[in-house]
Amino acid sequence: AATAIHQHLRYNPLRDSWVLVSAHRMKRPWAGQVEKPPEEHIPRFDPRNPLCPGNTRANGEINPNYDSTFVFENDFPALQPDAPDPGSDQHPLFQSKAARGVCKVMCFHPWSDITLPFMKTPEVVKVIDKWAELVEDLGSTYPWVQIFENKGAVMGCSNPHPHCQVWASSFLPNEPALSDRCQRDYHQKHGEPLLLQYAKQEAEKKERVVVQSSHWLAVVPYWATWPYQTLLLPRRHVLRINDLTAEEREDLAAIMKRLLTKYDNLFEVSFPYSMGWHGAPTGPHLKEDNSHWQLHAHYYPPLLRSATVKKFMVGYEMLAQEQRDLTPEQAAEKLRNLPEEHYKSREE
Amino acid sequence: AATAIHQHLRYNPLRDSWVLVSAHRMKRPWAGQVEKPPEEHIPRFDPRNPLCPGNTRANGEINPNYDSTFVFENDFPALQPDAPDPGSDQHPLFQSKAARGVCKVMCFHPWSDITLPFMKTPEVVKVIDKWAELVEDLGSTYPWVQIFENKGAVMGCSNPHPHCQVWASSFLPNEPALSDRCQRDYHQKHGEPLLLQYAKQEAEKKERVVVQSSHWLAVVPYWATWPYQTLLLPRRHVLRINDLTAEEREDLAAIMKRLLTKYDNLFEVSFPYSMGWHGAPTGPHLKEDNSHWQLHAHYYPPLLRSATVKKFMVGYEMLAQEQRDLTPEQAAEKLRNLPEEHYKSREE
Ligand SMILES: O=P(O)(O)O[C@H]1O[C@H](CO)[C@@H](O)[C@H](O)[C@H]1O
Ligand SMILES: O=P(O)(O)O[C@H]1O[C@H](CO)[C@@H](O)[C@H](O)[C@H]1O
Repeated sequence: AATAIHQHLRYNPLRDSWVLVSAHRMKRPWAGQVEKPPEEHIPRFDPRNPLCPGNTRANGEINPNYDSTFVFENDFPALQPDAPDPGSDQHPLFQSKAARGVCKVMCFHPWSDITLPFMKTPEVVKVIDKWAELVEDLGSTYPWVQIFENKGAVMGCSNPHPHCQVWASSFLPNEPALSDRCQRDYHQKHGEPLLLQYAKQEAEKKERVVVQSSHWLAVVPYWATWPYQTLLLPRRHVLRINDLTAEEREDLAAIMKRLLTKYDNLFEVSFPYSMGWHGAPTGPHLKEDNSHWQLHAHYYPPLLRSATVKKFMVGYEMLAQEQRDLTPEQAAEKLRNLPEEHYKSREE
Repeated sequence: AATAIHQHLRYNPLRDSWVLVSAHRMKRPWAGQVEKPPEEHIPRFDPRNPLCPGNTRANGEINPNYDSTFVFENDFPALQPDAPDPGSDQHPLFQSKAARGVCKVMCFHPWSDITLPFMKTPEVVKVIDKWAELVEDLGSTYPWVQIFENKGAVMGCSNPHPHCQVWASSFLPNEPALSDRCQRDYHQKHGEPLLLQYAKQEAEKKERVVVQSSHWLAVVPYWATWPYQTLLLPRRHVLRINDLTAEEREDLAAIMKRLLTKYDNLFEVSFPYSMGWHGAPTGPHLKEDNSHWQLHAHYYPPLLRSATVKKFMVGYEMLAQEQRDLTPEQAAEKLRNLPEEHYKSREE
């Protein structure tokens, strides 16, 4: 197909924007910055790591000797519950608004030297259960609860201990607000939730599927911007992570392990990424009709060519339009063909 | 003011979106990834550098012995003039479009070891003249001509030789399309171009001004997302870079040198950034009324704390909303108070 070798634009229906796909750009040599590969020997327990069980954090609090997940308040939160109203001067070019919220950190496991693909399925289920619990609790009042994981130093993650963050806010942030509008418009126009229809189509087309199971589907979306970006979708219509059944959670844990193992196998490195969940808004929105929403997770990994060469979203991407250097189908095929056994298990 | 210490949201009228300002976040310690400082000893001429005068490039062409600016076609272009139509399957979730264009590289100077702040004002004027010429030429047919500079390895720039890129496209990319809509709406509603009104207000308020001259103004915009982001604006209503008078170009060269010297002085390092120009669309848009547009340049520098610690736009920023760790007023004040003499000149 012409799209495999020639540049073209693709439409992202979740963001109402376009991405430039320039498949032929992978041919150019790379003499630019290389990233340090991640640290190989992380101690299971480090007495100075504020995320480890039993250690003392910046604020003097002592972590319990937790043996599964552990949630605490971020010691340097970007959102606090009691910020005052900034009192905008009301000029249309100088508008401000109050922002309130909470920032939590959630450890996945007591060990610093483990990652999700190496955790046992029931241990990953505990992570999912805790995510659901946090969305339920914080979502009872806050309109948006953002669960996200920054993994790897290249993604600004300053601590190797397996963890994610949960930021709940008094406002609907830009990205979910845009996604809400796009899903609502699509639903109104086509009578079916956008991502439900999309999952069905992708399951049939198969060319962008990376892994699938009875309840879940992971694809490199047609409109992917990051080289190996994926979208993880339930097959059933599900609004929020706390609506998942026990069976769906167990199946999710299994497919996450499979997807992340493939990611690690791609360049034989603990794969860096930012990931996060988007589901129907909460708080005051719980009373509204949100049937246009479908729960999903985005994985945004930066690596392009190898364990040390990432895609730079700079210059043209910042000022004009996102641009990718291989097609989503090429990326999906590479990931799909990788073994589901972790390269580190094979080494041992 | 409460906005100097407490988190709040600010509205970006050029992108119709919000940024989360969490001033207090600078207090958190940083134990994460540090960047390599830029190479200190770049040879003036390197026989293997494809951007130097007289050298042979990837495609076998030999560069002339240029003594000012030098423009050539990118050897690995993301946009080519003859890409075929992808022939979309027309399903609303699988939309594609043709993308055609040209990618040019422009060297600023024959020396690899010089940067814009060290070039003489008439040399920088030659760069501006060439920018204007390229917008005039490529803009006669292409709807958008994006001039951008990626500076520094941390911004994905793989060659230390001072240069920028110019990508012209058969489509209006996302960012200028959004900016066009925002400026048009504002103009219709308020009867004056958005950025013309903004420059007047900022010149009066002064707290976000970094440098100014008789024809130009550089501010940390009220809605800045990157820590030391700036917006460079003419005071007169100017649609495109090729509309600038000789006097305005000379004044622009001078203010660019002053701004970039301050940037270098901030962390005493050759300051990395992506920058680019936005002006009224061209090609078929030349016949339309574009009086809502105002020419401007965006500077997006990544450094946050020091020459080696950048701001990571990851996790929450990618999935929810951009977030900054100091206020635009704090950033402007720091930049404003820096000397206009380059730290390297003082060393000598
Ligand atoms: O063309 P260059 O400088 O090799 O490449 C750089 O700039 C391009 C345009 O912003 C980006 O797409 C690339 O990711 C980046 O590495
Ligand atoms: O809170 P952390 O992990 O220290 O910080 C990291 O994630 C945050 C949320 O995505 C970002 O704002 C920071 O730039 C990044 O370094």
